[in-house]
Amino acid sequence: MTDAPKRQMKLGVFANPTGNHVASWRHPDAQADAGVNFAHYAEIAQSAERAKFDMIFLSDNICVREAKMEALSRSAQYVANFEPLTLLSALSVVTSRIGLVATASTSYNEPYHVARKFASLDHLSQGRAGWNLVTSALGAEAPNFGRETHFDHRERYLRAHEFATIVTGLWDSWDDDAFVRDKESGRFFTPDALHTLNHKGEFFSVKGPLNVARTPQGWPVIVQAGGSEDMMAVAAEFAEVIFCAPLTFEAARTFYDKIKGHAASRSRSADTMKILPGLAPIVGRTDAEAAEKVRHLESLTHPVVALEILSTILGGIDFSGYDIDAPFPDDLPATTNASQYVYASAQELARSENLTLREVALRMAGARGKNVVTGTPKQIADMMEEWFEGGAADGFNILPSHFPGGLNDFVEMVVPELQRRGLFRTEYEGTTLRENLGLARPGNRYVEQLTPIAV
Amino acid sequence: MTDAPKRQMKLGVFANPTGNHVASWRHPDAQADAGVNFAHYAEIAQSAERAKFDMIFLSDNICVREAKMEALSRSAQYVANFEPLTLLSALSVVTSRIGLVATASTSYNEPYHVARKFASLDHLSQGRAGWNLVTSALGAEAPNFGRETHFDHRERYLRAHEFATIVTGLWDSWDDDAFVRDKESGRFFTPDALHTLNHKGEFFSVKGPLNVARTPQGWPVIVQAGGSEDMMAVAAEFAEVIFCAPLTFEAARTFYDKIKGHAASRSRSADTMKILPGLAPIVGRTDAEAAEKVRHLESLTHPVVALEILSTILGGIDFSGYDIDAPFPDDLPATTNASQYVYASAQELARSENLTLREVALRMAGARGKNVVTGTPKQIADMMEEWFEGGAADGFNILPSHFPGGLNDFVEMVVPELQRRGLFRTEYEGTTLRENLGLARPGNRYVEQLTPIAV
Repeated sequence: MTDAPKRQMKLGVFANPTGNHVASWRHPDAQADAGVNFAHYAEIAQSAERAKFDMIFLSDNICVREAKMEALSRSAQYVANFEPLTLLSALSVVTSRIGLVATASTSYNEPYHVARKFASLDHLSQGRAGWNLVTSALGAEAPNFGRETHFDHRERYLRAHEFATIVTGLWDSWDDDAFVRDKESGRFFTPDALHTLNHKGEFFSVKGPLNVARTPQGWPVIVQAGGSEDMMAVAAEFAEVIFCAPLTFEAARTFYDKIKGHAASRSRSADTMKILPGLAPIVGRTDAEAAEKVRHLESLTHPVVALEILSTILGGIDFSGYDIDAPFPDDLPATTNASQYVYASAQELARSENLTLREVALRMAGARGKNVVTGTPKQIADMMEEWFEGGAADGFNILPSHFPGGLNDFVEMVVPELQRRGLFRTEYEGTTLRENLGLARPGNRYVEQLTPIAV
Repeated sequence: MTDAPKRQMKLGVFANPTGNHVASWRHPDAQADAGVNFAHYAEIAQSAERAKFDMIFLSDNICVREAKMEALSRSAQYVANFEPLTLLSALSVVTSRIGLVATASTSYNEPYHVARKFASLDHLSQGRAGWNLVTSALGAEAPNFGRETHFDHRERYLRAHEFATIVTGLWDSWDDDAFVRDKESGRFFTPDALHTLNHKGEFFSVKGPLNVARTPQGWPVIVQAGGSEDMMAVAAEFAEVIFCAPLTFEAARTFYDKIKGHAASRSRSADTMKILPGLAPIVGRTDAEAAEKVRHLESLTHPVVALEILSTILGGIDFSGYDIDAPFPDDLPATTNASQYVYASAQELARSENLTLREVALRMAGARGKNVVTGTPKQIADMMEEWFEGGAADGFNILPSHFPGGLNDFVEMVVPELQRRGLFRTEYEGTTLRENLGLARPGNRYVEQLTPIAV
């Protein structure tokens, strides 16, 4: 009799071209041309695969980010990069086990195209595709798609829900065994294994069927990010992996309980949904070495860029009337609820270390609103274990500060520590992303209704 | 003093999953699962690259083809396959010189997505992408994109023209040297090297800029297929490669003169546009061996499938009232002009060999309306040389009857014969598709207007 296998973490790597830190492209080791450098991405994906990561993740915007030109022209992020699905398709050839997850917006795409491209990627990668189902966050996308203004918040989420219903319906267009390809009889597919969706909804009308066979995973894994109430309702129904960005253990555990509760209310068991908080580790062999890495990245950050990022994560504050070298102001105008939370963190940071606006901006811009944890491999593994065992996480989406160094540090120092503790795999459990995540392969909604007919 | 280099043919290979012949999937050598078999496509692309082909070409429909189920379920073509852009992105990794050309419809896509994905492919492949700019031919696509009916013919071509204007404009969003990525100064791109399209037209409103850097080729190569008068006007302005399907030398020469005349009327020199008629070769070491290959493929063709294809290429004739084993009927109802031409060919074929409806269907379904040339390597090279030297072609788009055998026959027998005659390259001239096709790299429309500003 053997023990039940120990529950282990799931790990993703967020492949922001040059890294999560806003100045990462200026790091001496960085591939500054990462956004058009396939060899760079191949190296990241292969490193993460050697370390047995579950997946590599690409975020996306369908526009050049809007910002003041002085800041934008000093930034590498969300300016000009490979398109995610073409990039992941190419990466499928130079990897064999790691999952390939891309963002595709439900606001400015057609469900048929999205269903088709992710299905194609799932076939190309033999079962390693994942779709990060989002609504467009940036209003700057709207005018690239014939609209003067962005859809309002509520409409975005209603569209997202209907969109996901259609995409998953299209993925069931063919039974798994539809294509008999019998050279002898001349029958290529079984007629009653083809299903036409005939969707007519509030936002979309999509007939189907999809012109891609059902995929190795049945459905590509569905991922979601963002924690609004509306999005939680979509997540409770569809999401199998959730990315989130809590900054404290308490916030993470509250989110974890809430979203697993939502899932339970849809009769889904808790382990059908993996919650991966973002974690931006800065690893040193000693505390001092880790702190020096932070200081180095801050020294590369232009104040104009830092202020722009701080403005963005505070909900669009205009800092032009403030003295950058005066103490951090405590009279900023109120913006959104989420920003108020970030503002409180900034004030707390400024107060505890007596910081100026410039210093707060450099510190917070580097993190870009993410949970930066600086320390030794043991300290970082301790924090991860605490969250994982304490009901706050099923794993983490790792945001290396810069590539390749920030990823290599984590792979070489933290992953072995997690493995020693039995918290992370030393070999892949399966060949598909679903198998490695421990997620069931969805059945086909039409199969129960099938009655064999003579053909 | 050296002689001017001899003009040489350009060659593409049409990678219809299992081959051009309607029964190709049943061939003993065929990969019947070609549509989801990446290794199959890698083999085709690598074979064609070893033979120094200019490009591999993927056609596309954004639907499952509509046909009676008895015929459809016996067909491998336009049912369920990889999506072309994801497939070509993966193929870019296993090839290094061959061009990668995919179809993307201007009817049911957004220009921003198309511009972005082909630009991304051009970066991934380091300058080997081509876009086959088409209007959707199949009305069955419309209900997958929220429309009850297909756009009418005239609107499709007006949209295509505006679509191409936008896509090429987006490809010029960044100067070639926009991304200085200067780690020292912290300047990532030069502000005045970024251009916003601000397109507002009849069908589309697209602001830009594109979030992909200008590509190795400046613009991916623009390809077009189809010979209607409206499409010729679009081709005259944008197309650099034209695929066409003439069945005789005279028809090819007439088309060639006409389209090059259209180009001249737009002040384009004739060699900025390469005209590649489709050619479906069936090669044997002897006439008898070639004829046996044809007979073998015909023997694999189910009569139901043959009649469906014949019906389609005759413009939708319903054969249900006809005796399949009676002489080919001469009282079919009139359909379109193009179909009338095919009908005349079918009648001529039936008369000259005294064929039944079944026999005509088998013969013509195999060809699928393409120019099938059966014979020895010398005979096929003679035909190609005659067209090429006689002002009817700048090269050919090769449609192998089946994969891999039909391609291998052409590569092993016909290509060496063409090379011996000096009609085809023995080594690639360059590294990009443009360089190999002998096409100039387009300048950026905005560059002349630039005045340097201090940043």
